[in-house]
Amino acid sequence: MGALEQALQAWRAVLGPGRVDIDAAVLARYAASTAARPVMPLAVLRVASHEEVAAVVRTAGEFDMPLYPLSTGRNWGYGDACPSSPGQVIVDLAGMNRIIDVDATLAYAVIEPGVTQAQLSGYLAQRQLPLWMDCTGAGPDTSLVGNILERGFGHSPYGDRFRHMAGMRAVLANGETLHTGFGHFANALTRHLYPYGVGPALDGLLTQSNLAIVTQLGLWLMPKAEAVSHMIASLPVHADVARAVDALRPLRLDGTLRSVVHIGNDLRVLSGGMVFPHALAPAGPPLPDAVRAELRARAGIGHWTISAAMYGRHAQVAEAQRAVRRALAHLPARLRFIDDRKLAIGARVARLARWSAGGRRLAEQVALGRSLLNMNRGVPDGRFLAGAYWRRRGGWPAGFPAHANPALDGCGMIWLAPVLPLRGADLLAVHALAAPAFAAHGFDLFETYSMINERALGGVLTICFDQGDAAETERAHRCYHVAFDALVAAGYVPYRTGPLAMRQLDKGDDSYWRTVARIKQALDPGGLFAPGRYDGS
Amino acid sequence: MGALEQALQAWRAVLGPGRVDIDAAVLARYAASTAARPVMPLAVLRVASHEEVAAVVRTAGEFDMPLYPLSTGRNWGYGDACPSSPGQVIVDLAGMNRIIDVDATLAYAVIEPGVTQAQLSGYLAQRQLPLWMDCTGAGPDTSLVGNILERGFGHSPYGDRFRHMAGMRAVLANGETLHTGFGHFANALTRHLYPYGVGPALDGLLTQSNLAIVTQLGLWLMPKAEAVSHMIASLPVHADVARAVDALRPLRLDGTLRSVVHIGNDLRVLSGGMVFPHALAPAGPPLPDAVRAELRARAGIGHWTISAAMYGRHAQVAEAQRAVRRALAHLPARLRFIDDRKLAIGARVARLARWSAGGRRLAEQVALGRSLLNMNRGVPDGRFLAGAYWRRRGGWPAGFPAHANPALDGCGMIWLAPVLPLRGADLLAVHALAAPAFAAHGFDLFETYSMINERALGGVLTICFDQGDAAETERAHRCYHVAFDALVAAGYVPYRTGPLAMRQLDKGDDSYWRTVARIKQALDPGGLFAPGRYDGS
Repeated sequence: MGALEQALQAWRAVLGPGRVDIDAAVLARYAASTAARPVMPLAVLRVASHEEVAAVVRTAGEFDMPLYPLSTGRNWGYGDACPSSPGQVIVDLAGMNRIIDVDATLAYAVIEPGVTQAQLSGYLAQRQLPLWMDCTGAGPDTSLVGNILERGFGHSPYGDRFRHMAGMRAVLANGETLHTGFGHFANALTRHLYPYGVGPALDGLLTQSNLAIVTQLGLWLMPKAEAVSHMIASLPVHADVARAVDALRPLRLDGTLRSVVHIGNDLRVLSGGMVFPHALAPAGPPLPDAVRAELRARAGIGHWTISAAMYGRHAQVAEAQRAVRRALAHLPARLRFIDDRKLAIGARVARLARWSAGGRRLAEQVALGRSLLNMNRGVPDGRFLAGAYWRRRGGWPAGFPAHANPALDGCGMIWLAPVLPLRGADLLAVHALAAPAFAAHGFDLFETYSMINERALGGVLTICFDQGDAAETERAHRCYHVAFDALVAAGYVPYRTGPLAMRQLDKGDDSYWRTVARIKQALDPGGLFAPGRYDGS
Repeated sequence: MGALEQALQAWRAVLGPGRVDIDAAVLARYAASTAARPVMPLAVLRVASHEEVAAVVRTAGEFDMPLYPLSTGRNWGYGDACPSSPGQVIVDLAGMNRIIDVDATLAYAVIEPGVTQAQLSGYLAQRQLPLWMDCTGAGPDTSLVGNILERGFGHSPYGDRFRHMAGMRAVLANGETLHTGFGHFANALTRHLYPYGVGPALDGLLTQSNLAIVTQLGLWLMPKAEAVSHMIASLPVHADVARAVDALRPLRLDGTLRSVVHIGNDLRVLSGGMVFPHALAPAGPPLPDAVRAELRARAGIGHWTISAAMYGRHAQVAEAQRAVRRALAHLPARLRFIDDRKLAIGARVARLARWSAGGRRLAEQVALGRSLLNMNRGVPDGRFLAGAYWRRRGGWPAGFPAHANPALDGCGMIWLAPVLPLRGADLLAVHALAAPAFAAHGFDLFETYSMINERALGGVLTICFDQGDAAETERAHRCYHVAFDALVAAGYVPYRTGPLAMRQLDKGDDSYWRTVARIKQALDPGGLFAPGRYDGS
């Protein structure tokens, strides 16, 4: 009996046979990837508790079987549920989905990795707690913990998610339990209130890494605000986006705009409502400029759309609106503020005019506005995944966007996420580097730039391709690598990546990656956890 | 020739003889400690550059000589300049005091460890840059980098200092250079703008640790605000502090109060203007209740003073003031807001009435108000160190507070810094644990509680003692350990400590400290850096 067989036997003894899966169809589902680079796991273990994780890890160590932990496996565009290399056993934590505690006074939740955006959002709503969570556009079924461990960002004042948590519990490769922060002191009252504890702060080590399996953490929640207003500014002229960035930067820096400001190009907005229009562009992507202009005109949008939410008491929100108006006054921008009252009026008008094209368009705009305001308040929505389907054969699946799963739906999509200084000139520079690469490889360039903190833009460039077309898939990968290298060479390094480019991050002779490798060797000498994942190897 | 001699010879070759010091008087200055537990170094090396640090480290490795790095060695109350154990060679980085860069657009500075609060503050003022730094009360001559590496906190919206920096450069025990964040990518444009980089985030590892010598980092600065208003609330009734904390918590949580709110007891305020009054309390400390009450009445203060600054545009500050007023309306609190205009009027009145006691008191209040407002804007002041001199023989030295140095001035002072949930009941609980211990050992209890983030209070309990009195010094240490253990047992763990209690942090069989030890072993197998410092040994 080989090592895998022996390990499976031991795992079956711990988890029961039903939670140890080697069915080829099941494994293929986990291997499915929007990058069209499926990575087959050897098996899938469905664990339900911290103790089970520890037991699974000890067995893995005994039989030298590498493990790849997943929260819910919805890491779209960055590897989805795929292990970092073949030959690994997936530890699926989706079943560990308990909301252990919600503290309404101090505004935090203690959650397990399987807790999804929809689940926590629903929990807060059901109990009418005056708390909102930060929400990403990755859909209702994604894991909050998984996203934090990837250092993802959302849209609210708590959008830098890693900065809004405290106290992890994890299983180390030797099966030990590690508490970060103050959690390793018995009775510590501040384990989820103060992130650093005393002594070296280890949380950062457990993000974008392969050093432990995190089984619980404290997630900070926002107190519900008296008022929320969603700003949407549409810029008709491409180059004006730089002026807008520079005009809004002082407001982000001085705390007037406390949430993540999101800047998307026309295709990001258009792809929310349609897939690639073959009828208008029979030669395939990229869309001809004239068609793009026509689509912008029809949708009533400009080259760029800036979107941000203001939170606070009514007077605070009004003051922030005034500041935004003043900042953008010198630009040819169409500026609107959406709130609940305006949406209610819009919905009524749309109902009255539902027989007309204008009425239908208004209804669509109201629905989008509602989704945006919901997201600001931590209510997730699958509609923001629509862009992933741009080149999918057959377009949106029936029932979309409920339970949208771009990987299982066969969408071809890769995300490239460079970080930029928060300056207009840098946005234009990144655009100027990416646009020719995308055009040369025959792809539409989807761009967003988010003010993820007060000083940096998190860019997301999306390559959408048809997974059913081998040549297009091949071109997508080439495009990705070309754009990746050009951006890194120019100083715009991605904040996150999938297995496709992880090895591109280490240019060799890099003390940072050597340090990471030494720490890996110290904490996981057998290379048990996710070999190849952010470890410079 | 012994190893030390050989090492010294090699260091002299690198640094020149003038920067390698083994003079007993010099070593004694470094050994001086407010805790009255001097730790003698073997030698002091004064380095001036990153390359010199690397060379010094390589030599240390060759001759197996442990190094203790200091920024400016002003870690008052937590060990001052003392190495973590005897037998170490101090690497004094005070001479590495270059301000490498200040970026006014993106609001950050790149600084070396020797850069002091006064230096950066002066640099910004001189160049009339519209930027403010966060400032602590530890005085003008303290290091910004050193304080961040201890995870200290200041008073402004950037008061959680570790959260307001990006991109460290450090020397590892093998002499290699480590860049955290994006800094290890050549040309990375965001090394000081986005803290995490890609892959495991290592910055946390380099704080409160002994894993590397940090030689540079990017410090975020605040854009100058249109308006600053300093709130001072005086609470006449002790127990009301709990109600005030609970009333202000929602404003801290919702971002109305974005800066660190500071709550001090009567002794913290009184000790700013006097030392222990032997004439009034000839039996020595603790001060009898009646004397304390009399001193409060004379100074016109209550049991507790709450102090916080509001920043923003005039309308934003006015709205924050209204919210604070509303929050405290139900409490018997005297609430004042200080700003430049009011101070100017106060100063004029005080000048007119300078012949009267009232006029002199007003002049003192104006001076204090100015110091507070200055601190809010990043202009440091030595006066907030006055409390350290409470039990010093001879009181304040001549010229105080210019270049105040409590360690060299022979002050007896130990700080105990438990972290509490941001709840009034927890403040009272900590007080109730500490007060009997202080009283039993014959000490006045100085207390401050700072809202260091939206969910936690950072407490600082000060034991002031007379270093010239051996029995009192001995009692101070006993008091410290008793209070420390009582607080930790109740779940209030300190966020920081000095050599006095570092070993008390590891209760044994603690996976956190074992993990830290494994990382230490991986990065510094020879135990070259600061053995015993936050390493669980």
